[in-house]
Amino acid sequence: MPAATQGATSSTIVGGRSVVARAWRLPGEVCRKIWKVGKEDTRRVIHALKVGTALTLVSFLYLLEPLFNGIGKNVMWAVMTVVVVLEFTAGATLCKGLNRGLGTVGAGSLAFLIDFVSQKSGRIFRAVFIGAAVFFVGFTATFVRFFPHIKKNYDYGVLIFLLTFNLITVSSYRVDNVLDLAKDRLYTIGIGVLICLFMSHLIFPILSGEDLHDSTVRKLEGLATSVEACVSGYFQDDVKMTRQESFREVIKTGYRTVLDSKYSDELSAQFSSWEPRRSLRCHRFPGKQYLKLGVVLRHFAYNSVALYGCLESEIQVGFLDPSDIPEELHASRTCVFDLIPKHVVLLDSQTPCHVRRLFREPCIQIAREVSRVLTELAAGVRNRRCCSPEVLSHNLRDALEDLNAGINSQMPRIFLGLESARSTPNASAAAATVATKKPDESPDKDVPSTPLLERRAQRQLAALEGNEPAAPGKKTLRPMLSKITITRLECSEVLPFSAFASLLVEMVARLDLVVEEVEELARVASFREFTGYEDDVRIKVRSGGARSTHLEPPTAG
Amino acid sequence: MPAATQGATSSTIVGGRSVVARAWRLPGEVCRKIWKVGKEDTRRVIHALKVGTALTLVSFLYLLEPLFNGIGKNVMWAVMTVVVVLEFTAGATLCKGLNRGLGTVGAGSLAFLIDFVSQKSGRIFRAVFIGAAVFFVGFTATFVRFFPHIKKNYDYGVLIFLLTFNLITVSSYRVDNVLDLAKDRLYTIGIGVLICLFMSHLIFPILSGEDLHDSTVRKLEGLATSVEACVSGYFQDDVKMTRQESFREVIKTGYRTVLDSKYSDELSAQFSSWEPRRSLRCHRFPGKQYLKLGVVLRHFAYNSVALYGCLESEIQVGFLDPSDIPEELHASRTCVFDLIPKHVVLLDSQTPCHVRRLFREPCIQIAREVSRVLTELAAGVRNRRCCSPEVLSHNLRDALEDLNAGINSQMPRIFLGLESARSTPNASAAAATVATKKPDESPDKDVPSTPLLERRAQRQLAALEGNEPAAPGKKTLRPMLSKITITRLECSEVLPFSAFASLLVEMVARLDLVVEEVEELARVASFREFTGYEDDVRIKVRSGGARSTHLEPPTAG
Repeated sequence: MPAATQGATSSTIVGGRSVVARAWRLPGEVCRKIWKVGKEDTRRVIHALKVGTALTLVSFLYLLEPLFNGIGKNVMWAVMTVVVVLEFTAGATLCKGLNRGLGTVGAGSLAFLIDFVSQKSGRIFRAVFIGAAVFFVGFTATFVRFFPHIKKNYDYGVLIFLLTFNLITVSSYRVDNVLDLAKDRLYTIGIGVLICLFMSHLIFPILSGEDLHDSTVRKLEGLATSVEACVSGYFQDDVKMTRQESFREVIKTGYRTVLDSKYSDELSAQFSSWEPRRSLRCHRFPGKQYLKLGVVLRHFAYNSVALYGCLESEIQVGFLDPSDIPEELHASRTCVFDLIPKHVVLLDSQTPCHVRRLFREPCIQIAREVSRVLTELAAGVRNRRCCSPEVLSHNLRDALEDLNAGINSQMPRIFLGLESARSTPNASAAAATVATKKPDESPDKDVPSTPLLERRAQRQLAALEGNEPAAPGKKTLRPMLSKITITRLECSEVLPFSAFASLLVEMVARLDLVVEEVEELARVASFREFTGYEDDVRIKVRSGGARSTHLEPPTAG
Repeated sequence: MPAATQGATSSTIVGGRSVVARAWRLPGEVCRKIWKVGKEDTRRVIHALKVGTALTLVSFLYLLEPLFNGIGKNVMWAVMTVVVVLEFTAGATLCKGLNRGLGTVGAGSLAFLIDFVSQKSGRIFRAVFIGAAVFFVGFTATFVRFFPHIKKNYDYGVLIFLLTFNLITVSSYRVDNVLDLAKDRLYTIGIGVLICLFMSHLIFPILSGEDLHDSTVRKLEGLATSVEACVSGYFQDDVKMTRQESFREVIKTGYRTVLDSKYSDELSAQFSSWEPRRSLRCHRFPGKQYLKLGVVLRHFAYNSVALYGCLESEIQVGFLDPSDIPEELHASRTCVFDLIPKHVVLLDSQTPCHVRRLFREPCIQIAREVSRVLTELAAGVRNRRCCSPEVLSHNLRDALEDLNAGINSQMPRIFLGLESARSTPNASAAAATVATKKPDESPDKDVPSTPLLERRAQRQLAALEGNEPAAPGKKTLRPMLSKITITRLECSEVLPFSAFASLLVEMVARLDLVVEEVEELARVASFREFTGYEDDVRIKVRSGGARSTHLEPPTAG
């Protein structure tokens, strides 16, 4: 017992110490966090400085005597406007400012009309009339906000309309000159909006269009990295490398950037349509074309996810020596024929080394070319120039031809087992090892297979989104999984590879679509013509690496 | 010339008439639109009525003499609070209300502190001090809003903090008792928040958790429809049917519901965490588990997209008589080996009827089973009960075995051309027709292939997202597409089907994950145990079809 008490005391001390240590570390952590957030995008610091300046400016209206005498207490509306309207990008600020202005004007007019109608009636009737008007306008405005078009473009305007209408109408009951009330509010809101527009459009403007542009470049680059890593990982003999979480994270980050971009891209495109045109030749920022490219990239990414699925299977099964497989990795296959007990899968369903080696060169070549094309497209978009006319080179065609020739000549032999000699001693050793394991893991044994399957599912889920595996729960269902007893899957060693090859070729087809859309973007946004890769460097140097200041030489585009 | 003038006049008249006719139709259209928006979700009407009522209630504070005397002009803050805080769901309202409350209290305290510090100094120093404080707080609060955790949960609170701080601090310069100012604002905001909470939690409450629950059910059902339609379409001989836009729309709607749900689901889950618990046994709404299920469903949907890609190819190529193919459909293939000139693809790359017929039964059986399982899971979630222990039935296993047996026995024969007799006369006729076309479409001819490819790409893009095809633009690049001259693709007739089969089996593996997550959801959310399908009907009748009023019998779950 004393030992226990001692333990408890010491743990309290340790706990207290750890709290103190944590509190000691806290300022450092907070500073690191602040630094990280600011470094990720320095425009955040600029924006914060702008908001601080705008608020100080607007508070001068109140603090400085002559200005205060002119405007008076209504300056509060200007403060409120600056806080609410000054958004991160110029487009968003303009959109909100206009919405606020229109909402205020509309509500003021309606409130004035209602005041005019109800002015000559008695006090009680007027109160009832105002109450009814408030109810009706409240109902209508709220309902209107559910219309998709209004929700997308004018949601804030309708909100401000409702707010202003209520404030003015209700006040009008006890204030005589409602017109003055509306006018004052409009003036001060106007001042606030002007300060916001000045700050967002003239002082270090941050453009939504630029956001969309940069995000598109990042997406293209991410996909390029992802595809190349995925395919080279598939044909990698050194499974230790492909098993590394960092390696798989590279692939997943690449396609996840694209898959998760829909909402933010649509918002950027919407705001960018409010922004002033960027150059003399481009009449409007082609937000729609960026969105179209985003759609095509997302479909490209779906394909990447499927391709990664193939790799995940291979990582789990493709160990040179199965005794080397950690249990939890073994259990986390996401592959084709996943419902079939593990020992069968291990024996048959993995694409054997000799099959993979046969098609390794053309597949890696295709992936390298796809990656190169994507990188080149990204460079083109980044530098606002058309991409090289040879962006789809002959290498890609040659690699496709090689793969096709390989499939034509090798597949029938593999299928009929003519190529029965498995040349690698490792592979045969693996088969032997698994074969000796067989009696231990009979497919009819229910009990040992259940936790395996459970853990596999959890690992899979964690692998999909990079989350921690969930705590294992009680399992009573799942009667079927362990009952499947397909003993031989002769074809399945070719089927996974067929799927992989199909997806790779499908990827080339989708790449074609991506190129198409990037070209269309170059046309719509009047990118300068391609004059060689050295120009990228020259222009980068000339513009000092700044985001939106590079020059655009005249073109025929 | 007179003819032209006449034409212009008549077109003006026609134009004028059409404007009149349009104006005449407008009210009808608006009514139909209103009806549609209301019918889609009747809770919208309820919410609009609630907002109207709340606003009327709060305006009573101003209109009724005794209430006005107590509160005075500050009632405006209550009106503003009701307009801004009363959101569609109870969780969102609570979240916003708390944010507003906390922001106001925090800002009031800080403003009071600053007022206290600066009170004893001179007038000019005080103005400078207040200006500096406004700048610093404005900068900090804006920067803090970029922290992901704060952006997600407390964005509105920080905004209100900034707003209130500025209003109070700036006012404090000319108002003596700043504490009263802060107190008044707090009181009236409190009244507004209370009215909002009353309206959102007690009068026909609309719960974010219910939204998330319903959206999950809809996603499961959509995927079920999509998968079954997709696979049955793949094996459909009557291409007229599969070519219909409505048929493909069914498939696309199914998976698009899932793919587009990420943002709204995350928002619902976030708000649902603020909502009161639903039943006595479920301590918190398991929003996280719903999100996890959403992740798995999205990965299932990526697979569906890939499967639909296979179908799209078959629709475009699998015509019984190629002369029947409309040019624009012909040009819109999304298939494997898409880079290869059309005539080659038509001749070789389509999965022939006899191959498809061989695997038709097991594939359709698998799809039917997958669809059944998904529907059953949807019914389980909808009725808040665990799913049947036989949800993964033996039929699925049998169908997988059949497919495996079919592949094992037939594939080698197909590969080596042992099954060379193409039994369908239609297919051979098709091959003959295309063969005769060959001299017209030489693969080296650049000019005719370019518009085809262009239109294909546009059609594909339109097909992907259901948009209109874009106007064709100038094309100068694309040197390679028409140059590829692979003449024979012997294996390609099996490769597309291999990919289809692989994806189908992969789908079963992912279905397993979905079942896993639904079971976990049932456990976490304490769904009642499965007692038979009749119970669903009985409970539906007992609860009068209402969403959240059904009873939950005691279980051991």
